[in-house]
Amino acid sequence: MAEEAAVRAQAETVRRLKQGNGDPDEIAKEVAKLLEMKSQLGEDEGKHKFVLKTPKGTRDYGPKQMAIRERVFNAIISCFKRHGAEVIDTPVFELKETLTGKYGEDSKLIYDLKDQGGELLSLRYDLTVPFARYLAMNKVTNMKRYHVAKVYRRDNPAMTRGRYREFYQCDFDIAGQFDPMIPDAECLKIVHEILSDLQLGDFVIKVNDRRILDGMFAVCGVPDSKFRTICSSVDKLDKVPWEEVRSEMVGEKGLSPEAADRIGEYVQLHGGLDLIERLLQDPKLSQNKLAKEGLGDMKLLFEYLTLFGITEKVSFDLSLARGLDYYTGVIFEAVLLHQENEHVEEPVSVGSVAGGGRYDGLVGMFDPKGRKVPCVGVSIGIERIFSILEQRLEASEEKIRTTETQVLVASAQKKLLEERLKLISELWDAGIKAEMLYKKNPKLLNQLQYCEETGIPLVAIVGEQELKDGVIKLRNVATREEVNVRRESLVEEIRIRTSQC
Amino acid sequence: MAEEAAVRAQAETVRRLKQGNGDPDEIAKEVAKLLEMKSQLGEDEGKHKFVLKTPKGTRDYGPKQMAIRERVFNAIISCFKRHGAEVIDTPVFELKETLTGKYGEDSKLIYDLKDQGGELLSLRYDLTVPFARYLAMNKVTNMKRYHVAKVYRRDNPAMTRGRYREFYQCDFDIAGQFDPMIPDAECLKIVHEILSDLQLGDFVIKVNDRRILDGMFAVCGVPDSKFRTICSSVDKLDKVPWEEVRSEMVGEKGLSPEAADRIGEYVQLHGGLDLIERLLQDPKLSQNKLAKEGLGDMKLLFEYLTLFGITEKVSFDLSLARGLDYYTGVIFEAVLLHQENEHVEEPVSVGSVAGGGRYDGLVGMFDPKGRKVPCVGVSIGIERIFSILEQRLEASEEKIRTTETQVLVASAQKKLLEERLKLISELWDAGIKAEMLYKKNPKLLNQLQYCEETGIPLVAIVGEQELKDGVIKLRNVATREEVNVRRESLVEEIRIRTSQC
Repeated sequence: MAEEAAVRAQAETVRRLKQGNGDPDEIAKEVAKLLEMKSQLGEDEGKHKFVLKTPKGTRDYGPKQMAIRERVFNAIISCFKRHGAEVIDTPVFELKETLTGKYGEDSKLIYDLKDQGGELLSLRYDLTVPFARYLAMNKVTNMKRYHVAKVYRRDNPAMTRGRYREFYQCDFDIAGQFDPMIPDAECLKIVHEILSDLQLGDFVIKVNDRRILDGMFAVCGVPDSKFRTICSSVDKLDKVPWEEVRSEMVGEKGLSPEAADRIGEYVQLHGGLDLIERLLQDPKLSQNKLAKEGLGDMKLLFEYLTLFGITEKVSFDLSLARGLDYYTGVIFEAVLLHQENEHVEEPVSVGSVAGGGRYDGLVGMFDPKGRKVPCVGVSIGIERIFSILEQRLEASEEKIRTTETQVLVASAQKKLLEERLKLISELWDAGIKAEMLYKKNPKLLNQLQYCEETGIPLVAIVGEQELKDGVIKLRNVATREEVNVRRESLVEEIRIRTSQC
Repeated sequence: MAEEAAVRAQAETVRRLKQGNGDPDEIAKEVAKLLEMKSQLGEDEGKHKFVLKTPKGTRDYGPKQMAIRERVFNAIISCFKRHGAEVIDTPVFELKETLTGKYGEDSKLIYDLKDQGGELLSLRYDLTVPFARYLAMNKVTNMKRYHVAKVYRRDNPAMTRGRYREFYQCDFDIAGQFDPMIPDAECLKIVHEILSDLQLGDFVIKVNDRRILDGMFAVCGVPDSKFRTICSSVDKLDKVPWEEVRSEMVGEKGLSPEAADRIGEYVQLHGGLDLIERLLQDPKLSQNKLAKEGLGDMKLLFEYLTLFGITEKVSFDLSLARGLDYYTGVIFEAVLLHQENEHVEEPVSVGSVAGGGRYDGLVGMFDPKGRKVPCVGVSIGIERIFSILEQRLEASEEKIRTTETQVLVASAQKKLLEERLKLISELWDAGIKAEMLYKKNPKLLNQLQYCEETGIPLVAIVGEQELKDGVIKLRNVATREEVNVRRESLVEEIRIRTSQC
């Protein structure tokens, strides 16, 4: 190709110039030309053309998205703090073996790091396993903590519905040996507080118990060895109809049709205290020790939730199973019922926005002596919440500020850069949030326009006459009202005016 | 081994019980016994014994460390906001090719992800390259942003000195075509504000310019092809003496001894405006176009820094080189002079705590048409700052609270769990930060002790008599003073009392 020959010729020119100790400026120019030619050729070091993107299933957060994100984080974290939680942080990767055997069928979705010598590492899949590892490693037997951080799953992304490969989880967990169901009830209260606070529309928190599920499987005639895999099938009931789940159980998983049908009767049940009472009288379930324990605790849980005044949004639902292996008791999941958005005609189901449960065995898996630390926790899945709020905000055309700047330091005439620098430095040192344009002689109109675009409420205008008089002209961008303020009162004046905004 | 036989026998017991559809409770007990035996044997699925640790070069942050970390973050982020920055976030990994060719000799320290099918990915090495990728991808030509996030380097960790493989960077960058040195000066002002604010002791900000370095290399007779590698040698001058650096230049890198000696004369120079003026008159440097440009801009920078009132802490230092390939103009690095800590006898040098510079070519490397976006930025290396503050705090024995709980809901008698749950629910709903012990009938003494340990200032005590009277007993933990407060005034009373704390 002629283009390739031209690139080679240009490369030779650069080489000669460099060898000849040529003028650096000229070299730089010729190198730039070479790079330009190369990039036009798409011949990026002989490799395929460079793709300008983020990895599959991930995204950047721009300033507007960050503004929404911080609102959501604030609501969630202030709830966690209201409940007296401490905060911890753990590394983004763990030893591979720390994650091994914790996630059941989902383990294939774990991101491994390349073996570059040294330890084998994987990116964390959730915040629960690192928390259990933290407790065991530090021999902590008692802790209420939250953790807000990104986790990683090589899943099929569905980004418009807020399903990513890199996503935030906001976890709150209570570890320790306590009287039954008090911490469990608090976790549900937290979900209720956060979802109410965020005003995402109507929601329901489904609750079940692994012991009730296992007891149910036993009395329906599921062999013990099939408990976990049948549990995975039941877990799909929120997405596919019973008939499909049944045929998976019978076809793929080899369950007897009779057992499947018995399960089918149970998993369509949902309700409140009345249903719990009924099942406690169920001739088969009431004979199963695990189911009885689970139902007894469920009753206690509902009594506590009644005291918290939140039973209206909680549904005891026998179809709730949760995918993860490590749960041992109560499990729950919060689902938005429909997206409350006047601008969207069809309600979009965004599915689960929070989930959690009790995992009494996980810490023991890390402890060298198998010592158990009972735990219960909740994870808020905020990416889905983000996508709802993002869509809502776009529809509403509400303007979000992406900075907190209180005042722009501007000049009315030329040659006042030094004066602007002096003034802005004074303001920064006094704690005022201030910006200026990075131009020697900006036009006043451009400076005012910048304020309109970015929402800066005040302009401090330096002018020659004002400098002589020892004042600064302070302009309100919205009202266009201007007043001269003595320089020594400027900081105070800006504070007063922006606290009113 | 006899133990192994015992494990096999136990496994057989479990298998038989499961096949026989045995009592789930009994099965669970036998499985637990089996796991216990296995773990004692260290026979974790036939692999080596499980190691309970975080990956090499990483660490957990416990609640106390997080409390320090949040203080430091707050100081840094509020400075960034004071200067009008927006915030963005990018994924923790990038396409491998995004990072390729940006870091020079340091590229070997990049963490790659395992090829599990799909794209080749690497963990980010800094926040600068992702920022440049973000600008090019979104065609942004003008932005002032900060980004606080973890970056990853497979370096030799030195954890006591705050050098980790996973560590936070706090970056502030200004992108856009502006009048010279105004954004550059602001970056230095920011470093000055943050280091002053954090009260880490005396510091100096060293400043240089890649153009001055390149000009200096040229007039000293360094061949153009050796500029970058000789620059790497100069970069070591903050750690090793000149003689060693000289012998690396001459021995390993094949520079002529005369050229090395000429460099040696320059790199020992440091000073302020006076030095800049002297070098502008230097017979050799003043003839070099790049050096002249760099020195001219350095003069302008110092004029702006004088207006900011910070030249006292800034030193123009010809030995400063910075390792990264992408810098094109001003470079700088802040160094703590000694650790101000009365409890530590020998001052510990913690080295660089902030650094940055101008990189006008990086965005163009991502743009398909090579369009440039000039950038300058600063990165605060907070791990070193943390280790200083952590050590200082340990020495001072200051007690840090790790929660913000305002009140513990307690009971004076037994059988008041329901009343405690009702009251704490009311408090949470009113926005009060409240905790209770997760026990049905906790002793009052234990409840008071919990407050002392965790620093909770108030206790709301529910008692039978108080319930009849419609009051709650509010106790100040520090003074032990108790008053009865009408239930409807409790929230207000707690607010008043904790705003005084």
